[in-house]
Order: sequence, then structure tokens, then C-alpha cells
Amino acid sequence: MAPERGSRPESLMLPKEVRGPAPCVFCGGQESLDPHEIGAIRLPGTAPNTPGWLVRVLPNKFPALRIEGELVREGVGLFDMMSGIGAHEVIVETPDHNVDLADLAEDQIGAVLRVYQDRMNDLQGDDRFKYVLIFKNQGYEAGATVGHAHSQLIATPVTPKRVKEELVGARRYYEFKHRCVFCDIIKQELRLTPERLVLETDSFVVLSPFAAHVPFEVWILPKKHSCDFGAISQQECLGLAHALKQTLLKLRVALGDPPFNYLIHTAPFRRPRVGYWATIQQDFHWHVEIVPRVTRLAGFEEGTGFYINPILPEEAAAVLRVTMTIPEPAPAAA
Amino acid sequence: MAPERGSRPESLMLPKEVRGPAPCVFCGGQESLDPHEIGAIRLPGTAPNTPGWLVRVLPNKFPALRIEGELVREGVGLFDMMSGIGAHEVIVETPDHNVDLADLAEDQIGAVLRVYQDRMNDLQGDDRFKYVLIFKNQGYEAGATVGHAHSQLIATPVTPKRVKEELVGARRYYEFKHRCVFCDIIKQELRLTPERLVLETDSFVVLSPFAAHVPFEVWILPKKHSCDFGAISQQECLGLAHALKQTLLKLRVALGDPPFNYLIHTAPFRRPRVGYWATIQQDFHWHVEIVPRVTRLAGFEEGTGFYINPILPEEAAAVLRVTMTIPEPAPAAA
Repeated sequence: MAPERGSRPESLMLPKEVRGPAPCVFCGGQESLDPHEIGAIRLPGTAPNTPGWLVRVLPNKFPALRIEGELVREGVGLFDMMSGIGAHEVIVETPDHNVDLADLAEDQIGAVLRVYQDRMNDLQGDDRFKYVLIFKNQGYEAGATVGHAHSQLIATPVTPKRVKEELVGARRYYEFKHRCVFCDIIKQELRLTPERLVLETDSFVVLSPFAAHVPFEVWILPKKHSCDFGAISQQECLGLAHALKQTLLKLRVALGDPPFNYLIHTAPFRRPRVGYWATIQQDFHWHVEIVPRVTRLAGFEEGTGFYINPILPEEAAAVLRVTMTIPEPAPAAA
Repeated sequence: MAPERGSRPESLMLPKEVRGPAPCVFCGGQESLDPHEIGAIRLPGTAPNTPGWLVRVLPNKFPALRIEGELVREGVGLFDMMSGIGAHEVIVETPDHNVDLADLAEDQIGAVLRVYQDRMNDLQGDDRFKYVLIFKNQGYEAGATVGHAHSQLIATPVTPKRVKEELVGARRYYEFKHRCVFCDIIKQELRLTPERLVLETDSFVVLSPFAAHVPFEVWILPKKHSCDFGAISQQECLGLAHALKQTLLKLRVALGDPPFNYLIHTAPFRRPRVGYWATIQQDFHWHVEIVPRVTRLAGFEEGTGFYINPILPEEAAAVLRVTMTIPEPAPAAA
């Protein structure tokens, strides 16, 4: 429950336009409007909360979870309550109001990804948190309320339900096969069933997953096995930036600038990894999932947890494979 | 995967208006446009696929699952596939194009509920099916594509994920307490914590649940314990019709005709109930969940399976408790 968020204008129905007029609070030059900079990548010699940044991190003004306070668990009759402790941050991806992440140069996208890592690694120091979810909402139907390009981070005091389901699934596969299920998927999709392949780069495989839950769902999987996005190298960040930009541009061209979410799937903190999660370095494989929002969820999805997808992933991948993207990326807007 | 549904116009983005012009294929007098009537409540002496019906059941023209064929399970490399066998039906709630379910007389709503039961009980005879989900999508944001008042039924060859989670939760509570968790919730909410109560009738309790997952989520719980909606009496159907109509009218007045889904939560088929489900008659309690769609789901919900709700259920219930509804229901439109 986040009653503080009830005061934000979007909490009940709103019109669809979210870009809004410039300059906004996230624009370069407007730093004094929100001088609570948590972190940034900046030109040498520039001070926090002044211009000169490439990527800037701010607290979410309407946080779903709050950083202050103790983690309290209590009963309310037969119900269970836990205080809403966590972190909710906004990663502003560029000072420029009028571009999307996919318009940025690969170096700039790489800088955004390194900021994701920095924040994730920083928040590991807080014993109250078990997981950091990094995600992006772009477009009204994907839940965006602010048009200026940004991502979000939420640190949670419990491992989220869906994260746990994926981790448990990967672990059960590992117990059975003694191999990583994602490594096996990559191998099968590249060699045996390439019809779901969208793009292959030196270090990444982009595909629409078998039994995709929404049309044009796309996963970006690193070829190199690792459970931890926070630990990948700068070079790998640049490789991901390339794959991510190409994929987002393909989706934009193929679907006409669709609303989408993306999510970084990575292992929970808690080191040393012992007990139940002792094999997580072997059994889990970090990756990015992109979820375009071109259909609506309805009663069936709510009632079952199953998804009806009218577009086969093989068809979506075929469309995306041949979709040409702009050969020369626009320069970074900083 | 339901590629046949890709051909329907709503499969990718559409404008928000869903009522559409009358007469439509669901209107009284238009029966010849879709003469595939599966069942109906009709005036004596009227023939199938002719006028004279109060409630009419048709096959969904863009079925998510198909009734014909054998249930086949096969492997595709490391993936698993199962044929899309099931039933997907539309329950047309009235011959009148211009009213919603909440506008109908309670007798007519009771007739809709009895048709739900009839279809559910009929489909139990098919050994391929494990569950029947009955749900309603009203309004664009809730996934409706047709404006004429209707509900849907999907019979599935597996017990859906969310249904199983609820059943397992109820069973674990029963193993611990030897009581039904829903009976315990009803008792606590009526006697100890009535701040989430919306309405109490002779036979039903209407409340916004503790930690509601969306704003103004409302459950309608029968006071009489039973796991099986399909087995309730005609009198109970009328009691539910009254509670459902009052609740939907309250939501309409309080939120300005919001889009919503409702779902009937009931036990899966499979009798005799043995093994894992041996205690289901004691541990599960059928009910209706109403889910207004006034906020959007975004990356956080997609990534975690958790929901951020900006409106406390205690506040929503307080609003709905005092919301007055029309004292005289409009007569049935048949």
C-alpha cells in the first residue's frame, strides 16, 4: 500500500500524452528544481545538482517504498503487515527532453547501464534489502507518467514473487540437468530452432522467447554465463547498449513507437550465497526482458495468471529480424 | 498462443470506445447473425437462435482455446507444448444493446448467474477440462472489445496458476488451523475490523480486502461456506445478484463508470475429490472478486508480481459504504 502515491495526478485515469512540455524537472539546466542528486555520471569538475551530467539519479518523488525507517513485521488479526521500507529511485537517462533511450548514442546508453550497476551495487550494502529491480516504463500504456527519458529502480525488503518463481525454475532445471537453463536455451535457439532469433552480436543473443507471454516480447541474453548484472564489465555494458539500442529501434520501426517495459533480471543480493541459493552462480543467468504493451490484459489474465498471445513469437521474430534500423545513431544529446 | 485471435481488429491498439452501434450481433432480433446458440434462458415456446431469450450463450468467435481436438502434450527441444484445447464462450447478459449488467433487474442478473452455473456444470462432463473460469471485462481498459453487455467463460485443460496459488494458500491455512480462511476473514472483518466492509446482506459480505492489489478492489463473499459456485441454490443466486448489482452501482457512482473485471473464484472440477484436494470442500470458499481498472500496471508489477496500490482499502470501503445507489432498479430490458 502506497497511499502517498494517491496524491500524484496519474493515480486515477489521465489522458494518454505523457511527454509534456520542456523544460521539466529532469531537464539539463533545471537541477535546482530537484537538488537531491543520489548519483550521476558528470563531466570532470562539475558539482552535484548543477549542469554537466550525462546520467543523473534522483529519489522518486512519489516513492512506492521509503528508505527511512525500520523493517517492522506485525500481525493484524489473521493478516500480515510489513512496513514499506525500500528504495525508489529515478535514473534520468539524458539531459535532453526530446529524445528516447533508443535515440541516444551507444556510449550514452552504456553510461545509463553503468549507473544501473553502480546503484545496484551501492544498495547491496543495506542489509534491509533483498533485491533491486531495475525497469523502464515508456509510453502511457506501459505506465509512464513522465515523458523525459528515465528508468526506475526499486529495492525491496523481500525477494519479489516473480523473481523467486524464475530463480526456483532455474534451480530445479539445474538440479535435474546440472546445466544453466538459459545457456541451454541460447544453444538451442542459435543452433536448432533459430526461428525465434532476432539478432546475434559478439556477446549477446536477442530472441523472442518460446511461448512469449505478450506479442513481440524480446529477451536479450548475454552469451557469457553470469548470474549478476551488477558484476559485468564496462565492455559488456557497451555490448548490451548496442544490442538494446538495435532491439528498441527494431521495435519502434516494426510497431510504430510502441509503449513498452523492460526489466533487468538478475540474482538477488545476499552474499555469501549459501543454503538454498548456494548454486545460484551456476544456475541463474542475468538477462533483459522487453515487454511491448500492444495488447491489454483482461479478466482471463487476472484470473488465471496465464496470457493469451495472438502473435506467435516466431512471427514476431521474423518481422524484427528483417526490420532495418537507422545505420548512423544520433549523437548523444548531452 | 492463439494466433487465430491476431485477426481480430483489437489485437493491436484501438480507440477507447467499445459500445459500438446497435444493432450488433448480440442484440435481440439479430440471432440469425450468429446461429450457434449453446444455451439460453428463453420464454416458453421460443426456439434456439430466435428472439425470446433473456440470456444467451454463444461460442467466442476468436477463441483462446478450441473445443475440437485431442489434448496433446509434446516436447520441442527443451520446451514443452500442449494443444490449445478448451472452451471459450460468451454469455450475452441481455438482448438490450444499451444497458450494462448493473442496470438489469435483479431477476435478470440472477438469470445470468444461473446460466454461469449451467455452463460450468455442463462442461464438467468433459474429461479434458480441469477448470472453468467465468469472468467479465467491462470497458476498454478492462479488455472489453464488444460493448453489448456480456461475460465470458473459458474452460482450461490445466488448473490455472493463480487459481492453484489461491487453492494452495487456503489448504495450507486449513492444515494449520482446521478452519476455512475465508470464513475466518468474514468473521474478523464483520466483528473486529469492519473498516473494510462495504455492504452486508442476509447472505453475503462485500468488502475491500486487506492489502487490496488495486484501488477499489471488492470481494463478494457468501456467508454460507461452500467451495462450489456451481452448486449454490437459486435463492443464493438471487442473493448474489442483489449484492453484485448494489456493488457495481456503488462503484459506478463512486468512480464514474470505471472499467472493471470480475471473476468467479470456485473450486476446480475433478470428483471424487481425493488425494491433494481431499479437503477442498472444507478449505476453499467460492466468492466473486471485482477488479476496477483505474490505475495501469507497469514494469514494477511485471517484474515482481507485486502491486503498488495508492488507495488504502479502508479508504475505498469508506467511500463505497456511504455511496448511495439508485433505490429503484430499472426493469429488465428483455
